Amino acid sequence: MTAQFSFPVKVYYEDTDAGGIVYYANYLRYAERARTEWLKKIGLTNVYLAENHNIYFVVKSCAIDYHAPAMLEDELIVETSIEKVGGVSISMKHTVKRGDERLVSIDLKLASVDNNKKPNKITPELMNKLKG
Amino acid sequence: MTAQFSFPVKVYYEDTDAGGIVYYANYLRYAERARTEWLKKIGLTNVYLAENHNIYFVVKSCAIDYHAPAMLEDELIVETSIEKVGGVSISMKHTVKRGDERLVSIDLKLASVDNNKKPNKITPELMNKLKG
Amino acid sequence: MTAQFSFPVKVYYEDTDAGGIVYYANYLRYAERARTEWLKKIGLTNVYLAENHNIYFVVKSCAIDYHAPAMLEDELIVETSIEKVGGVSISMKHTVKRGDERLVSIDLKLASVDNNKKPNKITPELMNKLKG
Amino acid sequence: MTAQFSFPVKVYYEDTDAGGIVYYANYLRYAERARTEWLKKIGLTNVYLAENHNIYFVVKSCAIDYHAPAMLEDELIVETSIEKVGGVSISMKHTVKRGDERLVSIDLKLASVDNNKKPNKITPELMNKLKG
Repeated sequence: MTAQFSFPVKVYYEDTDAGGIVYYANYLRYAERARTEWLKKIGLTNVYLAENHNIYFVVKSCAIDYHAPAMLEDELIVETSIEKVGGVSISMKHTVKRGDERLVSIDLKLASVDNNKKPNKITPELMNKLKG
Repeated sequence: MTAQFSFPVKVYYEDTDAGGIVYYANYLRYAERARTEWLKKIGLTNVYLAENHNIYFVVKSCAIDYHAPAMLEDELIVETSIEKVGGVSISMKHTVKRGDERLVSIDLKLASVDNNKKPNKITPELMNKLKG
Repeated sequence: MTAQFSFPVKVYYEDTDAGGIVYYANYLRYAERARTEWLKKIGLTNVYLAENHNIYFVVKSCAIDYHAPAMLEDELIVETSIEKVGGVSISMKHTVKRGDERLVSIDLKLASVDNNKKPNKITPELMNKLKG
Repeated sequence: MTAQFSFPVKVYYEDTDAGGIVYYANYLRYAERARTEWLKKIGLTNVYLAENHNIYFVVKSCAIDYHAPAMLEDELIVETSIEKVGGVSISMKHTVKRGDERLVSIDLKLASVDNNKKPNKITPELMNKLKG
């Protein structure tokens, strides 16, 4: 593991569904917010990466386990850990928690692509930042 | 009134919230689907307008009245009427109905802009199509 | 005007659309987050109001003006002012800003209803809190 | 494999993000629409299952592979196949396609629970319907 990051998420009506719980797709929105803020914390932003490195991180695959549902007005934490930074990909893990309770686990693989969606190699300088 | 168009919308879990009803912002999604299909019906698409006329229709203002809530698995109709087509704007009305019951009314004004978000005059040829 | 509240919102990919700007319906999501946090700040929550007073605030109408678009990774402020607290309704105004620039203005009317969607009178004690 | 079902999905602005493609979480919305319509086709609905069998199908896990992005105004097909119907779970596969091109693959496991989120056994009669 090369880096860890915690990000708070509050559950609003927009996140819930008629089952009274957070809609299953919305945990991927939470994960993307956490990734964005992790990048910002290490001095990068999606806009900076696009404009200066022609790099866009796109999700190639993810596996989600739903252990327990989040509810309206829950105050959650998304824990993010960077598992591996490769030449054109990043493997990471998100865990959505309510206090100590693990609600949702997400394993996710990002690819680094350019504005034509072709693989774009992560420079050593960027790799150092991404590895924390 | 210059044209009318009906478009069906089904309510899925993604549309609802923990109150058991359709989340209030989502009627604007339904309205935009209906506008897109109305354009397609008159031989235009957002992609065609952008690529051939450098025209993007952006919403300048809207007023929404919520009369009664839509529920999970409701089969709704969005009725769209074009009220006025001006040089750089279109006024339209959407009514979301369940059978004969009017659930939500939306009055909406679109502006025609170019890819720099500057007003872009609707050509007479396009205006004829838009007026039906 | 009886109360004012500021709430920060960050723009993530989930909020934007292929036009490169925040999707027009999503400002209503931002407004609802701001309302939820305003309620919390005055010691109320949606869950508390439902469980203790059988009160649900539902949106009856809103009018939205779009002055300028918000973009990816913008850090916005939603300013909320309570215009009027009546027996079964609240009128409020949200202004979404980027720095000093006003992007979107929302005038909104909430109704206080019970779990059967019937009007439910706001008690004097609650009214005092809501008026700040 | 016990059943197969095809469902069309059109890509609207609401589905896309500033990258110009469908936002990665939204394929799960498409998948849920397809599941809902598959249930309806075999004579079941979420509302019917809840009210008559106290059965709610909740997603326990899913694995998503993103092969290629969908774009604005694409007309997609979600192919759904039921892999296995167990006592309290269903395994299924969704493939999101544009013409013959496979864009996104989703492997998904549903659990049958009651309104207290406890496992609720699928009756033989229901199982026959679900198996097609």
